[in-house]
Amino acid sequence: MSSILILNGPNLNLLGTRQPEVYGAHTLADVEALCRSVAKDLGLTVRFAQSNHEGVLIDEIHACRGKDDGILLNAGAYTHTSIALMDAIRSAEVPVVEVHLSNIHARESYRHRSYIAPVAVGQIAGFGIQGYELGLRALAAHGKEDGKAPGG
Amino acid sequence: MSSILILNGPNLNLLGTRQPEVYGAHTLADVEALCRSVAKDLGLTVRFAQSNHEGVLIDEIHACRGKDDGILLNAGAYTHTSIALMDAIRSAEVPVVEVHLSNIHARESYRHRSYIAPVAVGQIAGFGIQGYELGLRALAAHGKEDGKAPGG
Amino acid sequence: MSSILILNGPNLNLLGTRQPEVYGAHTLADVEALCRSVAKDLGLTVRFAQSNHEGVLIDEIHACRGKDDGILLNAGAYTHTSIALMDAIRSAEVPVVEVHLSNIHARESYRHRSYIAPVAVGQIAGFGIQGYELGLRALAAHGKEDGKAPGG
Amino acid sequence: MSSILILNGPNLNLLGTRQPEVYGAHTLADVEALCRSVAKDLGLTVRFAQSNHEGVLIDEIHACRGKDDGILLNAGAYTHTSIALMDAIRSAEVPVVEVHLSNIHARESYRHRSYIAPVAVGQIAGFGIQGYELGLRALAAHGKEDGKAPGG
Amino acid sequence: MSSILILNGPNLNLLGTRQPEVYGAHTLADVEALCRSVAKDLGLTVRFAQSNHEGVLIDEIHACRGKDDGILLNAGAYTHTSIALMDAIRSAEVPVVEVHLSNIHARESYRHRSYIAPVAVGQIAGFGIQGYELGLRALAAHGKEDGKAPGG
Amino acid sequence: MSSILILNGPNLNLLGTRQPEVYGAHTLADVEALCRSVAKDLGLTVRFAQSNHEGVLIDEIHACRGKDDGILLNAGAYTHTSIALMDAIRSAEVPVVEVHLSNIHARESYRHRSYIAPVAVGQIAGFGIQGYELGLRALAAHGKEDGKAPGG
Amino acid sequence: MSSILILNGPNLNLLGTRQPEVYGAHTLADVEALCRSVAKDLGLTVRFAQSNHEGVLIDEIHACRGKDDGILLNAGAYTHTSIALMDAIRSAEVPVVEVHLSNIHARESYRHRSYIAPVAVGQIAGFGIQGYELGLRALAAHGKEDGKAPGG
Amino acid sequence: MSSILILNGPNLNLLGTRQPEVYGAHTLADVEALCRSVAKDLGLTVRFAQSNHEGVLIDEIHACRGKDDGILLNAGAYTHTSIALMDAIRSAEVPVVEVHLSNIHARESYRHRSYIAPVAVGQIAGFGIQGYELGLRALAAHGKEDGKAPGG
Amino acid sequence: MSSILILNGPNLNLLGTRQPEVYGAHTLADVEALCRSVAKDLGLTVRFAQSNHEGVLIDEIHACRGKDDGILLNAGAYTHTSIALMDAIRSAEVPVVEVHLSNIHARESYRHRSYIAPVAVGQIAGFGIQGYELGLRALAAHGKEDGKAPGG
Amino acid sequence: MSSILILNGPNLNLLGTRQPEVYGAHTLADVEALCRSVAKDLGLTVRFAQSNHEGVLIDEIHACRGKDDGILLNAGAYTHTSIALMDAIRSAEVPVVEVHLSNIHARESYRHRSYIAPVAVGQIAGFGIQGYELGLRALAAHGKEDGKAPGG
Amino acid sequence: MSSILILNGPNLNLLGTRQPEVYGAHTLADVEALCRSVAKDLGLTVRFAQSNHEGVLIDEIHACRGKDDGILLNAGAYTHTSIALMDAIRSAEVPVVEVHLSNIHARESYRHRSYIAPVAVGQIAGFGIQGYELGLRALAAHGKEDGKAPGG
Amino acid sequence: MSSILILNGPNLNLLGTRQPEVYGAHTLADVEALCRSVAKDLGLTVRFAQSNHEGVLIDEIHACRGKDDGILLNAGAYTHTSIALMDAIRSAEVPVVEVHLSNIHARESYRHRSYIAPVAVGQIAGFGIQGYELGLRALAAHGKEDGKAPGG
Repeated sequence: MSSILILNGPNLNLLGTRQPEVYGAHTLADVEALCRSVAKDLGLTVRFAQSNHEGVLIDEIHACRGKDDGILLNAGAYTHTSIALMDAIRSAEVPVVEVHLSNIHARESYRHRSYIAPVAVGQIAGFGIQGYELGLRALAAHGKEDGKAPGG
Repeated sequence: MSSILILNGPNLNLLGTRQPEVYGAHTLADVEALCRSVAKDLGLTVRFAQSNHEGVLIDEIHACRGKDDGILLNAGAYTHTSIALMDAIRSAEVPVVEVHLSNIHARESYRHRSYIAPVAVGQIAGFGIQGYELGLRALAAHGKEDGKAPGG
Repeated sequence: MSSILILNGPNLNLLGTRQPEVYGAHTLADVEALCRSVAKDLGLTVRFAQSNHEGVLIDEIHACRGKDDGILLNAGAYTHTSIALMDAIRSAEVPVVEVHLSNIHARESYRHRSYIAPVAVGQIAGFGIQGYELGLRALAAHGKEDGKAPGG
Repeated sequence: MSSILILNGPNLNLLGTRQPEVYGAHTLADVEALCRSVAKDLGLTVRFAQSNHEGVLIDEIHACRGKDDGILLNAGAYTHTSIALMDAIRSAEVPVVEVHLSNIHARESYRHRSYIAPVAVGQIAGFGIQGYELGLRALAAHGKEDGKAPGG
Repeated sequence: MSSILILNGPNLNLLGTRQPEVYGAHTLADVEALCRSVAKDLGLTVRFAQSNHEGVLIDEIHACRGKDDGILLNAGAYTHTSIALMDAIRSAEVPVVEVHLSNIHARESYRHRSYIAPVAVGQIAGFGIQGYELGLRALAAHGKEDGKAPGG
Repeated sequence: MSSILILNGPNLNLLGTRQPEVYGAHTLADVEALCRSVAKDLGLTVRFAQSNHEGVLIDEIHACRGKDDGILLNAGAYTHTSIALMDAIRSAEVPVVEVHLSNIHARESYRHRSYIAPVAVGQIAGFGIQGYELGLRALAAHGKEDGKAPGG
Repeated sequence: MSSILILNGPNLNLLGTRQPEVYGAHTLADVEALCRSVAKDLGLTVRFAQSNHEGVLIDEIHACRGKDDGILLNAGAYTHTSIALMDAIRSAEVPVVEVHLSNIHARESYRHRSYIAPVAVGQIAGFGIQGYELGLRALAAHGKEDGKAPGG
Repeated sequence: MSSILILNGPNLNLLGTRQPEVYGAHTLADVEALCRSVAKDLGLTVRFAQSNHEGVLIDEIHACRGKDDGILLNAGAYTHTSIALMDAIRSAEVPVVEVHLSNIHARESYRHRSYIAPVAVGQIAGFGIQGYELGLRALAAHGKEDGKAPGG
Repeated sequence: MSSILILNGPNLNLLGTRQPEVYGAHTLADVEALCRSVAKDLGLTVRFAQSNHEGVLIDEIHACRGKDDGILLNAGAYTHTSIALMDAIRSAEVPVVEVHLSNIHARESYRHRSYIAPVAVGQIAGFGIQGYELGLRALAAHGKEDGKAPGG
Repeated sequence: MSSILILNGPNLNLLGTRQPEVYGAHTLADVEALCRSVAKDLGLTVRFAQSNHEGVLIDEIHACRGKDDGILLNAGAYTHTSIALMDAIRSAEVPVVEVHLSNIHARESYRHRSYIAPVAVGQIAGFGIQGYELGLRALAAHGKEDGKAPGG
Repeated sequence: MSSILILNGPNLNLLGTRQPEVYGAHTLADVEALCRSVAKDLGLTVRFAQSNHEGVLIDEIHACRGKDDGILLNAGAYTHTSIALMDAIRSAEVPVVEVHLSNIHARESYRHRSYIAPVAVGQIAGFGIQGYELGLRALAAHGKEDGKAPGG
Repeated sequence: MSSILILNGPNLNLLGTRQPEVYGAHTLADVEALCRSVAKDLGLTVRFAQSNHEGVLIDEIHACRGKDDGILLNAGAYTHTSIALMDAIRSAEVPVVEVHLSNIHARESYRHRSYIAPVAVGQIAGFGIQGYELGLRALAAHGKEDGKAPGG
């Protein structure tokens, strides 16, 4: 049974209380519940973490090495500013699927660039918390096929 | 039962024969078979179309009005150059989910900009033909919740 | 009596049903009726065509050579992306007046550039379907004075 | 009967004596005569003003509030450099139609940007002094429909 | 007792009647009354001037030399376009505090650049007419400390 | 009595010991003393915090929700690089006033952009530690009027 | 004997009648005659096609697979705007030589970028219809050496 | 005997009192005296004018038509921002020599662009008030040769 | 005997296990051993620290004041994004030598800019862990000569 | 019989020994032999020169005036950086054909710009040493038709 | 008596034979004769040199140290591309006046930037060979006043 | 015993006499002496060359092939402008270490780009003449390990 880290970045702890017209009314606890339910169906084990600290996110990604088979990552605003996160993913040698609640490509131009994308398997954006379900499905399928690290 | 148009743009007719190291070995017929199978599970009816002609793609999108409940669109290279397609989607008043076989954000910089994104519900990129399955799931969930058109 | 081609580009077939808060409620049939009425007053003969296909628009412009005395062109979104249309107008050696329903200079920045403008007599934008009337008047006056091709 | 201010900016006092191959041989007096004649036909009252001073143009626009029903504005080179004029139009709450003798979009790139456009009903460019006639027609039609200020 | 020039630029004469949702409902007379009241408390003498003319603003700044101990300047849209105003401040050798009613850094990108800032003591933006009170306090404190000209 | 968080970002703990010719000789303890004195006069309660950690600053802003009535924020260099801080402020739904000791618009170009500004009530820059007094006055007045969150 | 497709893009059907001072007086029929004559000497079989439709050009390139040994392509203005054509060439796995009648690098800056170049063997520009002869020679030599597809 | 207008723009009235380390200690009266002396030697008649108002400078240039044989222009900061001045010179049909006290190409980047240069005979910058002497010599030589207007 | 802080930024804890083809197979422990050996030869005392947290790195730099005589800094990806680190170095008033394992100027363009460089003595990049030896030698020589802080 | 200078720029002396996977294995002596053979067939006399010195290349081009009827120029990397070479060609008044061994438009972006192109008859790139044969054919045909200098 | 080096860069040896409509019909020998005549009047000794080689120009500038009192430099196209020349001037510690025959600011945009300007006393452009006379006068006056090196 | 070429570019012959506050007071002879001393310790043989001519530098690099085991290159200002030097290094197939006396990344922005870096082993900048010592150490270590050419 594969092990997946579901890692959430800055401000996602406020999910459901923050700009619901953009991100919907679900809380991060709802996301976790949904992920655990979907993971069970897909035969995956999931760990769940959130931090507003870039350094903690890097530490979490490092900690996946040799322990997890994939990361579902919503790096929040650090997606657009953190080369260090990109390097951490490169180092982690674990496949990463990038997920965003909102459609970042339809928002401010400084949200169009993702430093995660070049080192991720793929990106899912704009489907609210359903994006986490889709991301887990993508990781499950990815893992079954080859388990190799994402391209760079 | 919802009706979905699965619309494919330029060069996708050669799928499976073209740069398999980037796009995988599946053909467009495989994509169609996968979509029909997934759609059946999700209780969706799907139509399938492909064209290398920007004008035909616009015509197809127009034809959805009052007929289909969603579009799963892989506009290929027109994603990056066609404002006319964007306008067609705005006119269609039908929710659109954008799908790409490869992770366009990890490729050449001229593939990072999507004129589809600002008028789509969301974007799925990098998961090969599985992206079509994920996209149908996103459309099915989208339709169940509200059925309203994508934001602009 | 001068002959004018009134040529409409992508998505204009949906006029009146598409974003009426931006483009107004008139249909393309209303535009044609208005143009025929104005043309009659101005002593012009008008032909009317619309296509969502860039190639068809080019073919139409080519077909004007030696047949029409002017073109009233609303190239829609191709205005901003088609160097081929610009070249077609250069080849046509027929004066072109550029018309837009909305004020393109007050919209998204990618609608500010017109590849038609450098080869057109002039541009009219922002007056809804009245723009077609104004454009026909401009062509009628232009034709009476000299009939020469637009500058480049 | 509607009242319209026809306002001309820098260097237009030299009209007819300045680069006739670009702007034609008509003088500003000819423009005024044409406008008065057209206005009479359209049932409009027109005032006429010209200044080379940005500040005077702003004062004139301010003076329209509660007095005029529209402004036909050829701001000359200030079109491309004056945010203050744009703000004046926003403040004036009077519909403005932007007119240019030459096709500014076919000239030097620094003439392509208009600070007037985002606060104007629409733009007419490239038809010489006939542009003033077309602009008055646009204002007459605009006034009849709703009289509201241009969008911003 | 220090003497301060409170200088207002283009369109501020319409304050209170112009886009109240952006700038509030106070008039320039209200601003003057507020300033005179605050100045009295701070032991400052204030002069008050407004012009829509860039040249007049320059003349006013020149006139401060050897007469005033500071300038509270709201240069309106000239803030973003006038290098000449910047040079005038450099020449005036009088400390300048820059004030804006709205938060210019939260508005259109062409309002983010200030040619005043490099030659001003500091900038206050976004607090409506209260910004004038804050600006006078800043000038009062600045004067007490050293009275030297703003850096460049 | 309103409660205000005064939040200071990276390197401000060294205030008074760092480049005094740019930032002055006051220490952060002086700033706190000044703020407490001013707050008392204005009838405000103030909390005071400083961190060099972007994540801690985000946590502090989150902690304001339902507890404080405003934030006086000097985000230091994170002002120019942190979209995550901007998102935190959007989430906090508490009015923020942005303050900078130096005139950031007169310094290096990479200090001209503020990610805080689009979500702040307003900005005060260049007045040394007096800026904190001015900022508290702005928050006090802001709170009295409406208490609503800053625009976005 | 090798088979070559000579494919011409938009507006080339008007060759010889269009801007002869730029493109010369030869018609497309002349080009075809020249190509057939040169091909005969070089031992090549040539097919000849022209279209103003981007989609048709893509279809033609697709049709070469397994049928032709090379493509001599003058994509006209689509050279500068069509990523879809580039992708079609990548898919075609047939060597392409890019030819232009005029020296595109000596013309408007928007004609300097070629989306064809990165997937072509080489480029010939500025020699009028002689460029087709040179291109056929290049293809003939290319085919003799290795027949492999152009680099990407 | 040729007649020359020596026209000075914004802030030059403060010459000699303004940043002497950049512009030197000479006043505008000194410049006028120098010019009158040099003009006498060169057999030129000179008029002298200065204004901080862009509109006045335009009016002065217009007034040269048919009256003066050349303009020696130091447009100050308007050099870098005024397209209207450029148009005025084009209209004036009088040769213009551009002079600057400081070496504008060695200063801030926004002082490198001159809107005067494209319509001037030539430019002299960096020689302090001696630049006026050199400019008069250039105009004297220019007038003797042909007296034609500057290129555009 | 001089005291040097050797400070390593994000992801360097994984050194030797991460992309060895780019960074070599040495671990951070190897780097420390090398540094201690070199330091001994050079008569330097070294402290060694690593963190993935930008804030911790800032705290470490602050802690050098009055304690260390130099910093050898490999800030990893924060080199390219952290203005706060640059400010910390400015505050530290301790000479900094910047070292990178790989040749950052030969990698992705977003790794070419260093916010550390403007406040560092110098930069060494591309020599793997030998760069630390070279950097210590540079610091040793720098300290001997003058011990003054790096330029700004 | 026409005389042609075949001029090669920097690093081409190492041809055949340098990056054969990009430029092929032929040496410059092979190029010369090929050119002499082709020239003989075409009835041309050829001179051959190579230098790594920009100044020598300029001198060589100057020396063609009144002596040679055309230049076949491979300026190597100076193609992208030398305005002086461009000016030399303008001065030479001899037709120039630009040739490159590799397809410069498919390489690094700084190799896409050619300062030679605006003053050359045309450009041939990507065909290895065969490009010299094609270039001689182009020059031979060019000479026969008119012998006039390349446009600018 | 001061000694001046008059140094001319690439292609100026062809002066008078090259594009006379841009540069006039005078030869470099005429320039030298003019300079010698003017120098005699001004009490200057002049040396004269020209080279098409950037390195030779640098050598010449170096050779001025301790020998010449000024350089009149027309660096031709190297003006726009040579940072090495700029550095040579900085090293020479001799005042440099920059002269150009044509008005470089009215020509192609790549001729607007001068690497000479930041290290020159001033610039004279657009007056043909008279510019050399003006430049000598500027150097003569410069030398008399202070003889110090140009600013940087 | 390895052989190293120490190659210096433009203006370095004036070292020690040129801007000592930036580059220090050592002459190039001092650099050579230092290098010979260090080389002796490292068991290296060194050759030493300097030229202000880009072409000579290219010739020198070419001459290293099969003769030297490494190049220590200070290309001076050509670092930032010479693609030809970059190509020469690629051709040389000898490892190159790039050295700069000053910290080029802390100077003008046009000194930040290095065309040498992409083809060099690494870069050392900012340590004055000590940089040559560090560079020789880097080459010595590089040679011992593998002696292979630098990556590209």
